[in-house]
Amino acid sequence: MADLDRFLTLALHLGNLASDLAHTAWHGGLAVSYKADGSSLTQADLHIEASWREEIRRHFPSHGILGEEFGRESGDSAYTWVLDPIDGTRQFGAGLLNFASLISLCRDGIPVLGVIDLPIPGARYVAAKGQGTRFAGGIVRCADRREIADAVISLANPDSFLGDSRAGYLRLRDAGRVRVFDGGSPAYGALARGLVDICVNGDDLDSYDICALCPVVEEAGGTITDWQGRALTISSQGAIIAGATAALHAQALDLIAG
Amino acid sequence: MADLDRFLTLALHLGNLASDLAHTAWHGGLAVSYKADGSSLTQADLHIEASWREEIRRHFPSHGILGEEFGRESGDSAYTWVLDPIDGTRQFGAGLLNFASLISLCRDGIPVLGVIDLPIPGARYVAAKGQGTRFAGGIVRCADRREIADAVISLANPDSFLGDSRAGYLRLRDAGRVRVFDGGSPAYGALARGLVDICVNGDDLDSYDICALCPVVEEAGGTITDWQGRALTISSQGAIIAGATAALHAQALDLIAG
Repeated sequence: MADLDRFLTLALHLGNLASDLAHTAWHGGLAVSYKADGSSLTQADLHIEASWREEIRRHFPSHGILGEEFGRESGDSAYTWVLDPIDGTRQFGAGLLNFASLISLCRDGIPVLGVIDLPIPGARYVAAKGQGTRFAGGIVRCADRREIADAVISLANPDSFLGDSRAGYLRLRDAGRVRVFDGGSPAYGALARGLVDICVNGDDLDSYDICALCPVVEEAGGTITDWQGRALTISSQGAIIAGATAALHAQALDLIAG
Repeated sequence: MADLDRFLTLALHLGNLASDLAHTAWHGGLAVSYKADGSSLTQADLHIEASWREEIRRHFPSHGILGEEFGRESGDSAYTWVLDPIDGTRQFGAGLLNFASLISLCRDGIPVLGVIDLPIPGARYVAAKGQGTRFAGGIVRCADRREIADAVISLANPDSFLGDSRAGYLRLRDAGRVRVFDGGSPAYGALARGLVDICVNGDDLDSYDICALCPVVEEAGGTITDWQGRALTISSQGAIIAGATAALHAQALDLIAG
């Protein structure tokens, strides 16, 4: 699809912009402030999203934009860019490393293109519908893992499971072979590389945290849905779960449901 | 101290060796296996520590060596290198990013030189007794934070607080303004940069996880001890805590003691 290739070119350009800004900020002076809801904000979040919006308007003025920092701009086409300049700002602002820039494009609300850009490694997971998931110059695939007892499970920040998702989280937490915490969106990329088998996030996600992950996971052969097993769209919010195989994802969903 | 400068030169060389090996492994194929105790091991852990030992023996054959993967080699001097080729192997093996190579030198059991090397950012925290802590080409300092209610608290993997340290952990977890999880040794470097105010680890540490952190924190003005407030040495094991100021560290210790 020729259009998708043009959109992908822009997405990679946006990834470069984010990488440069986030890389400079992380290695230099990180000035962190806190939003009303207690979440972190840095100048880099604002600079990246502002520069992204400018580029999108210039290249595809009819497209809509939905971003974490500056809200929604309606478009005049089927396409909307869904953006999180720095997903994992707490980690970023604390000088830690599990954060990413998330770039996605939805067509009629369905994610068709996703980039999980890792500014500090200078690496990114890139997926466009029908084209596979790429990392470090090659196509990557999820592991062929089918039993939850053998799984490496990536659990989000434990604080994100303090609400309705608590009981399901605890059952899943104790089910795998190895567990890692607070991997953020890089963990969904690692699932596409075959290094993580299940990723789970709690109630606190918004669509700009979610949409970029979907093509990356699905094009690598994985399954990603909300906790009710529904496909994810530009309207999705709240808890999500991804599995390296459909069988593993189904087991994880059963466990969550209790 | 001329000797310390020679040792520092070797430590930086060891950091370069580790960075190259860990960087190549992380970006390429990560083959992970699991030890009897459930912890992770990769080929990179073994290669890095083997290459470090060879270099230390060549440059300072009288020095002792204590490393995570290959145990203890007694020396014939006051000096012992205390080494963890990859601290945070679970994160490393899962394609996540909060891991580091830890290099330290103890004199008569006291850490006098510490390097927290971050292979993926290509950055490192470097400290030698009396010379300050360096990061990204400059001297860094801890924040002047004195009230725990204002603190950014970095909590280790929650699984490391399942034993005796559980109650103290829960009190500390709920005391600060912002909390991040599973930052590993990079969080102790971030404390020296002024981005994190308190770092805490649970019962599962060994001396090779601990010694490199001490000069990095102390030379930046921070305080680091075990949970009883005792200075850390080559014989230390178990739970530790670091604060950006002595006042903050004292408050955290009080809170842990309950």
